[in-house]
Amino acid sequence: MSTLDVIRSAPQQLTVDAALVAAAIDAATACTVVCTACASACLSESDVEGMATCVRDDLDCADLCGVTARHLARLNASDRQLTTSLLAACIEACVQCAASCAPHREHHEHCRLCEEAALRCEQACQALLDALR
Amino acid sequence: MSTLDVIRSAPQQLTVDAALVAAAIDAATACTVVCTACASACLSESDVEGMATCVRDDLDCADLCGVTARHLARLNASDRQLTTSLLAACIEACVQCAASCAPHREHHEHCRLCEEAALRCEQACQALLDALR
Amino acid sequence: MSTLDVIRSAPQQLTVDAALVAAAIDAATACTVVCTACASACLSESDVEGMATCVRDDLDCADLCGVTARHLARLNASDRQLTTSLLAACIEACVQCAASCAPHREHHEHCRLCEEAALRCEQACQALLDALR
Amino acid sequence: MSTLDVIRSAPQQLTVDAALVAAAIDAATACTVVCTACASACLSESDVEGMATCVRDDLDCADLCGVTARHLARLNASDRQLTTSLLAACIEACVQCAASCAPHREHHEHCRLCEEAALRCEQACQALLDALR
Repeated sequence: MSTLDVIRSAPQQLTVDAALVAAAIDAATACTVVCTACASACLSESDVEGMATCVRDDLDCADLCGVTARHLARLNASDRQLTTSLLAACIEACVQCAASCAPHREHHEHCRLCEEAALRCEQACQALLDALR
Repeated sequence: MSTLDVIRSAPQQLTVDAALVAAAIDAATACTVVCTACASACLSESDVEGMATCVRDDLDCADLCGVTARHLARLNASDRQLTTSLLAACIEACVQCAASCAPHREHHEHCRLCEEAALRCEQACQALLDALR
Repeated sequence: MSTLDVIRSAPQQLTVDAALVAAAIDAATACTVVCTACASACLSESDVEGMATCVRDDLDCADLCGVTARHLARLNASDRQLTTSLLAACIEACVQCAASCAPHREHHEHCRLCEEAALRCEQACQALLDALR
Repeated sequence: MSTLDVIRSAPQQLTVDAALVAAAIDAATACTVVCTACASACLSESDVEGMATCVRDDLDCADLCGVTARHLARLNASDRQLTTSLLAACIEACVQCAASCAPHREHHEHCRLCEEAALRCEQACQALLDALR
């Protein structure tokens, strides 16, 4: 079962390519998990006092990606304005999170994975946003 | 214990009036509860087939208000861009939810309360957004 | 508008006192906000390396209280088994969070407020759980 | 990047097989998406008046699976009691959701996919719960 199958099983019409919606849901969902894990892992690192911004941006990104995935999973033809606002906020959170993880990518594998997931989510949300506009 | 006490107990500096942040958190938190209850109540009404849009907009509004309250509860001086994007999305969700509940306000008390909570949240988020810009 | 008004505006019948449900929703909602704020505040403290457990337990408690409030806001007569399991998990999270905040209550006001909110939520959830059994 | 890679990148020790944790996170994450989509799809069906229980149980299951995935993503050796309580509640929500979707599986593909995802999540959570006890 793929996310695309799930999106296509709904009766409501979309005004945008379902594959782009499914890709954004998958990227946002993966990013929520990695951000949540990265925040927790940062707290267990010996250099936690340098990781506060990273943890806080992880938490924002996990929340934004989670709520974006949920909104996209119930997407309807009529939701365009909220969808574009929410995608914009999610992209913001991903960019900020990736920037906070980047300085730690060499010494913390979870930060490297998190930066990667955030950038992938940002791209998937941007592709959907471009298609919606 | 008020939300303002909680906000003021944090060591990080805010660049905006803490009372506006606390008011937005309280309004968003209340709105999450009412939207969630309204969606469930709509499902139990005999005219549920006319309430689908109302339920869906309730769910979006509950999610957006919830994540906005969480972001504001961990607000930091450095978060301005994400904060403004998220407040804009939350306002969008509140406006949409209030518009979907309004036609049912005479016959469903939960829709009347939900419209009221969504408009109050929209105003509190707008006041904070104005102060941040 | 009180949470009790909202609960009473729903057409579905409850098999438990609505005032206990409303009290649990209010306590859980308040606890979510305080736990989220406390986690963020801990990250800004100079002794953050000693606060990792506190932050992690705050995050668990914020999540559990949030989802418990949402479940209770859509409560139905038929939900008893999930409701009791979820209340049990929420109580667990509150107890753990209060225990992690307690050692910091003298030097961090946010930990004192958070311990208080978690204990209040634990009591409100326990009162509802007792009534359901 | 797999969820298992993410779990293994964290410095904290687990007292349970990381592969079981990763499998439960993946199943819970997928279930959140399908439940959210199924609830929205149900609202667009012509027989929505018969779908109210299905929608409500989808929403509970989406919330429980979401918060379970987040808790497991930040799992620590010390979390055993909350983890077992939360897994028990999540299993309850999955069982209830699958039972509500089952009667619609022939005529609504989203209910068939949702029942499948809920049962898979129930099994992954049960396997982890067995390992923790």
